[in-house]
Amino acid sequence: MSRTLPDPATLAADLLAGQRRALSRAITLVESTRADDREAARALLREVMAAERSSLRVGLSGTPGVGKSTFTEAFGNMLIEMGLKVAVLAVDPSSARSGGSILGDKTRMETLSRHPDAFIRPSPSRSTLGGVARRTREAILLCEGAGYDVIIVETVGVGQSETMVADMTDLFLLLLAPAGGDELQGVKRGIMETADIICINKADGEMKRQAERTRADYSGALRLLRKRSYDPEDFPKAVAISAYENTGLDTLWDEMQALTNWRRESGHFEARRREQARHWFRQEVEAGLMARLTADEAARTRLETLANQTAAGEIAPDDAAAQLIESVFAPKR
Amino acid sequence: MSRTLPDPATLAADLLAGQRRALSRAITLVESTRADDREAARALLREVMAAERSSLRVGLSGTPGVGKSTFTEAFGNMLIEMGLKVAVLAVDPSSARSGGSILGDKTRMETLSRHPDAFIRPSPSRSTLGGVARRTREAILLCEGAGYDVIIVETVGVGQSETMVADMTDLFLLLLAPAGGDELQGVKRGIMETADIICINKADGEMKRQAERTRADYSGALRLLRKRSYDPEDFPKAVAISAYENTGLDTLWDEMQALTNWRRESGHFEARRREQARHWFRQEVEAGLMARLTADEAARTRLETLANQTAAGEIAPDDAAAQLIESVFAPKR
Repeated sequence: MSRTLPDPATLAADLLAGQRRALSRAITLVESTRADDREAARALLREVMAAERSSLRVGLSGTPGVGKSTFTEAFGNMLIEMGLKVAVLAVDPSSARSGGSILGDKTRMETLSRHPDAFIRPSPSRSTLGGVARRTREAILLCEGAGYDVIIVETVGVGQSETMVADMTDLFLLLLAPAGGDELQGVKRGIMETADIICINKADGEMKRQAERTRADYSGALRLLRKRSYDPEDFPKAVAISAYENTGLDTLWDEMQALTNWRRESGHFEARRREQARHWFRQEVEAGLMARLTADEAARTRLETLANQTAAGEIAPDDAAAQLIESVFAPKR
Repeated sequence: MSRTLPDPATLAADLLAGQRRALSRAITLVESTRADDREAARALLREVMAAERSSLRVGLSGTPGVGKSTFTEAFGNMLIEMGLKVAVLAVDPSSARSGGSILGDKTRMETLSRHPDAFIRPSPSRSTLGGVARRTREAILLCEGAGYDVIIVETVGVGQSETMVADMTDLFLLLLAPAGGDELQGVKRGIMETADIICINKADGEMKRQAERTRADYSGALRLLRKRSYDPEDFPKAVAISAYENTGLDTLWDEMQALTNWRRESGHFEARRREQARHWFRQEVEAGLMARLTADEAARTRLETLANQTAAGEIAPDDAAAQLIESVFAPKR
C-alpha cells in the first residue's frame, strides 16, 4: 500500500491544505495493519497533530430504522449551510463478522456525500473491534487536520460500540423513534451511560404528537435518573426533531453548542479529552505488549500451550497468565 | 484477609465437601486483590478444578423493574424442588461507581436465600470491570466445585456487562416486560448479540394477553433476524412466563435443557467453553503484562510521562505506546 502513497510529509501537507483525496488516502493508511504502513501512519499523525486544529466530535447512535442516515444528511446539510465543514465516520463492529459496512450505501446521503464541504467514510470491514477503535480515533484526528469543524461518528445501537464511540467523542446523541411509555424501561440504562441529548426523530405527520409525548417521557426520566456533576442543570435532555421535515435541527444544534460551551468554560471539555487520550493510550500499551510478547517464538509457543490447557479446563485463566508472564520475564532478571 | 482464612488445601477440601461457609470464604478470597491472597486463590482454584465438577452456567439480564429477583426466586425454587442445587451470582459494574450492589437486598429473594440448596452472592462493590469479570468467572468455578448444578449469573441490562456475562455462561436469558410492537426496535440488536431465550415476564392478570402478543412479536423478529449455525432451527426463541404466578417456568426449563442437550451433542457446548476460556486467558495476559510493566519504576515513570503527553494531545496514543514499549524492551535485546 505504501508504494502507491506519497510519503507522510507530503501527505500531511496536502491533508493540512484541505485536499479531500489526501484525507481519503491518509485514512486508508491508518487502516492498514502492515508494519511499514503503521510507521508511516505514526509519522503522518505527528505532522497533523502538530497543526493543533480543533473540531467538535459528535457521537451518534440509534437502532436501524430510526432514520440515522436521513438525520445525518439533514443535519450535515444544515451545518454546511452555516459555513461549517462536516465529516461523517462510521463504526460498525459487526462488519468484522458480516463483511458489510454501515454508510456503505452512500446514496442514502446523496446531497451530503456530493458536497465539497462534507466528507463521508464508511466503516472498514474485516477488522477487529480494537482495530476499528484505533482507525476511528486516528481518522478523527486526520479529519480535524483537514479542517472539518464537526465530526460525526455514527454507530449502530450495540452496547460495546456505543461505549467505544462515547469514549472518543465530545458529546453523544441518541436517536430514538416515537414510542409508548413502556419503551422507556428498555433503554433507560443505556441512556444513562452514554447520551447527552436524546433526539426523538420522526416528529412529523401522524407521529408528531406521539413524538412529543415520548420526548416528555424521556425528559422526565432523565431528570429523575441522572445528575452529572460535569453538566449544567438541564442536561442530559430530550428534543423532538424531524429529519424528514427538517424541523428541530436548529434547536438541537443550539443545545449542542450550549452544552459544549458550558463544558469548555467549566474545563470539563478539555478534561474529558485528556481522560479519553489516557484511556486509549492504555489500550494501545496493552495491545502493544501482547504483540511484543507474541513476536518472540518461544513465548508464542508457551502462550499457545497454556491457552490450550486453559481451554481444556486444566488451569484457570489467571493462573495460566501468571505462569506465562513468569516464564517470559524471569530469565531476564 | 489471609490470616483469618484456612490454607487453600483445607478450604478446597471443605468447599468440595459442599460446605457453604467454605464457599463464601473462597469467593471472598478470589475477590481480594492482595498479592498473597491471589497466590492462595490460584492454589485453591487448582484444587477445585481438579475435581472436574460440572454445572449449567446461565446468564440472566433484564432492565430494573422487569422482575429479575422475583423470577430468580421462583425459578430457583422450582429447580431446587427438582432436586438441583442453585447458585446465584450478581454482576453490577455500576457498583464500582455507586458503591452499591445488586442482590444486596437479599430479602427480595427471601425463600431462596434461606434454602440450604441455594447460594446467593451479591455483586462486589468498589471493583473495576476487569476485577468483577475475574471474580465472577472464578466464583462460577468455586460454585461448581461446591456441587451447585445450575449457576445463575445475573446482571443489569447494560451493554458491557451483558457481553461480559454472555462470555462466561452457557446460555443467556433476557427477561422483558410485555410491551407494544414499537418496543421491538429498541432491543433488537442487543438480543441478536446475547439472548438464547427471551422471557416475557408478567404474563399474568391484565397483562397476560399483552405478554402473549409481545412473545409472538419477538418470536417473529428472532426468526427473521438470526440464524445461528450452532443452534437448532427453532432457537433463539421467546417464551411467556409469570414469575409471580409461577407459570411457564417449567416450559422455560424444558427449553433450556433442549438447547443445552442439542449443543452438547453437537459439540458446540464444549467448543463455547473452550473459546471462553481462551478469551479470558488472553484478557488476563494483557492485564498481567501491564501489571508487570508498571512494577518497574523506570517504566512506570516513562508510562506516566507519555500518558501526560498523550493527554495533552502532543502525541497519538498508538505512537506513545510504541515509544514506551520500545524503550522498555530495547535495552534488553
